[in-house]
Amino acid sequence: MENRQIIVRELPKGELTTGHFEARTAPMPTPGQGEVLLRTILMSIDAANRSWLQGATYRDAVHAGDAMPTYAVCEVVESNSPRLAKGDLVAAESTWSAYTTCPAHKALKLPAVRPLEHLLSVYGIAGKTAFHGLMSVGQPVAGETVLVSAAAGSVGSIVGQIAKAIGCRVVGVAGGAEKCKWVTETLGFDACIDYREPGMGKALRAACPEGVDVYFDNVGGAVLEAALFAMNLRGRVVCCGAISQYDTTSTTGPRNLPGMVVVKRLRMEGFIVMDFADRDATALRALQTWVAAGQIKVFEDVVEGLENAPQALIGLLAGENKGKRMVRVGPDP
Amino acid sequence: MENRQIIVRELPKGELTTGHFEARTAPMPTPGQGEVLLRTILMSIDAANRSWLQGATYRDAVHAGDAMPTYAVCEVVESNSPRLAKGDLVAAESTWSAYTTCPAHKALKLPAVRPLEHLLSVYGIAGKTAFHGLMSVGQPVAGETVLVSAAAGSVGSIVGQIAKAIGCRVVGVAGGAEKCKWVTETLGFDACIDYREPGMGKALRAACPEGVDVYFDNVGGAVLEAALFAMNLRGRVVCCGAISQYDTTSTTGPRNLPGMVVVKRLRMEGFIVMDFADRDATALRALQTWVAAGQIKVFEDVVEGLENAPQALIGLLAGENKGKRMVRVGPDP
Repeated sequence: MENRQIIVRELPKGELTTGHFEARTAPMPTPGQGEVLLRTILMSIDAANRSWLQGATYRDAVHAGDAMPTYAVCEVVESNSPRLAKGDLVAAESTWSAYTTCPAHKALKLPAVRPLEHLLSVYGIAGKTAFHGLMSVGQPVAGETVLVSAAAGSVGSIVGQIAKAIGCRVVGVAGGAEKCKWVTETLGFDACIDYREPGMGKALRAACPEGVDVYFDNVGGAVLEAALFAMNLRGRVVCCGAISQYDTTSTTGPRNLPGMVVVKRLRMEGFIVMDFADRDATALRALQTWVAAGQIKVFEDVVEGLENAPQALIGLLAGENKGKRMVRVGPDP
Repeated sequence: MENRQIIVRELPKGELTTGHFEARTAPMPTPGQGEVLLRTILMSIDAANRSWLQGATYRDAVHAGDAMPTYAVCEVVESNSPRLAKGDLVAAESTWSAYTTCPAHKALKLPAVRPLEHLLSVYGIAGKTAFHGLMSVGQPVAGETVLVSAAAGSVGSIVGQIAKAIGCRVVGVAGGAEKCKWVTETLGFDACIDYREPGMGKALRAACPEGVDVYFDNVGGAVLEAALFAMNLRGRVVCCGAISQYDTTSTTGPRNLPGMVVVKRLRMEGFIVMDFADRDATALRALQTWVAAGQIKVFEDVVEGLENAPQALIGLLAGENKGKRMVRVGPDP
């Protein structure tokens, strides 16, 4: 029996294309002592995947010839460890592959949540990133204005709904009129600004008449620059991502940095979801409470088939998804 | 009797020159009810003065025709308020003028410290800015590496000496070999990098073999960009000023913002000294302790005569001072 994989054929210099990837078959991996053999069910597709191809970040650099790394929900099909049994459902750092192996202690046993997709969206990294970034870094209070970029994305869509649930005015930034309409009408944001339209600064001032207290930044670049001008004194910028900077080689920083940070005494703070692992249980309880109350609506965008993973990532970087994008590699157990 | 003043003749568009200022005589001001008449003794010259000419910041914009604002040490020569008496020494928001008036409740009565210059340097805004920014925003711990730009300046020279006093490795950034030598040999920094030399990034890595935990940023621009690359995970950037951005119209932001903030989970935070006024007494006690112990050496750069204030500010922006620059307008009482 052979394994199917998608490898990084060549590291991208500029815009990512399907030509940077290659499908291949490989021998079926064999789990060593203390390891498990995993069958991939769902793979998370994230803008951060693109940044991993830029060199070492908070994780090791990806090299040409490597299977593309991913975060995945998998079924244990063989176990050489007492920690996990055949049939267990786990989340693991994996690769774009039908089967992988990993040390059992590095796989996280998952609760029996259905649909499984929720384990990669609202109860997965996206939901926890939204919760920890907004609540622990941004620290908004009812009545404050929260601005969120990539508002229709996996994290942004949840950030905005949490902020609404706790009593904030919430303004999104998204690409295109149709997405902006979805963000206000379906997700319930108070307003949404189309960054592709000219006059973003003016639109921002109109949508935030009392200024911005917390800006949850998923994109960097021109939107960050416009947001800094709109921030209130002592505002907080939650630095979650810089999508606008990933898929390019030529970048210039916002011209008002650090000037606005000094003048307005802003706090800009980066984080990754693992930094707040000790608060994950609190995050999950809160997210489940809001989902049960209908205050968070969950939207998933599932692409079928391992072979479609490259296009799924490329499309995500172009902003074609609404809600959490993932690739289904195999059926539920 | 007439008053002498220096007014802003024209707001600068690019580099500040003496032509943007004009000396004039004006009628002697008369204090109203609740006001005091002040004789200017020492005026603080700060890079921030230049930013006040860029438009509204944390204070109102300066307009052409206004007397140039300043922070000054003054003697009360006439009082229409029970709060202050003739002969009192006060600090006040004032202007480049031999005499000014102000509401008595806005003037801060000063303790009997000699030399008076110390009230504008180590025990004034410079010392308090250094203390609050480093201790409350940067929060360094013994053994960490602290990087300070404008290291020979009024704030930077004190920041570095405080960081040494609490057990940090301290690296400065300054302009020119002579200043760098002064920073290490006289102020006692562990190393100092000349930003005018090529290869600043490499020099930074060599001077900070364990990376940078706290960067006290007085300059923004290229030094900030290089510092961000050198920061450790969870490092803190104290945003105190952006001297490199003040005296120019064309600015570009650091290219690695917000990328480095996300990847390294940095915190960048702006502040001004007034934000920490409730900790001023603590700051003064600590600064006096370090000065008495010889752990902080105080350097002042006193320019004589009101008429030399424009050149004193222009020279400061060009980096010609070591230690706190001020202008002496009149004799001690």
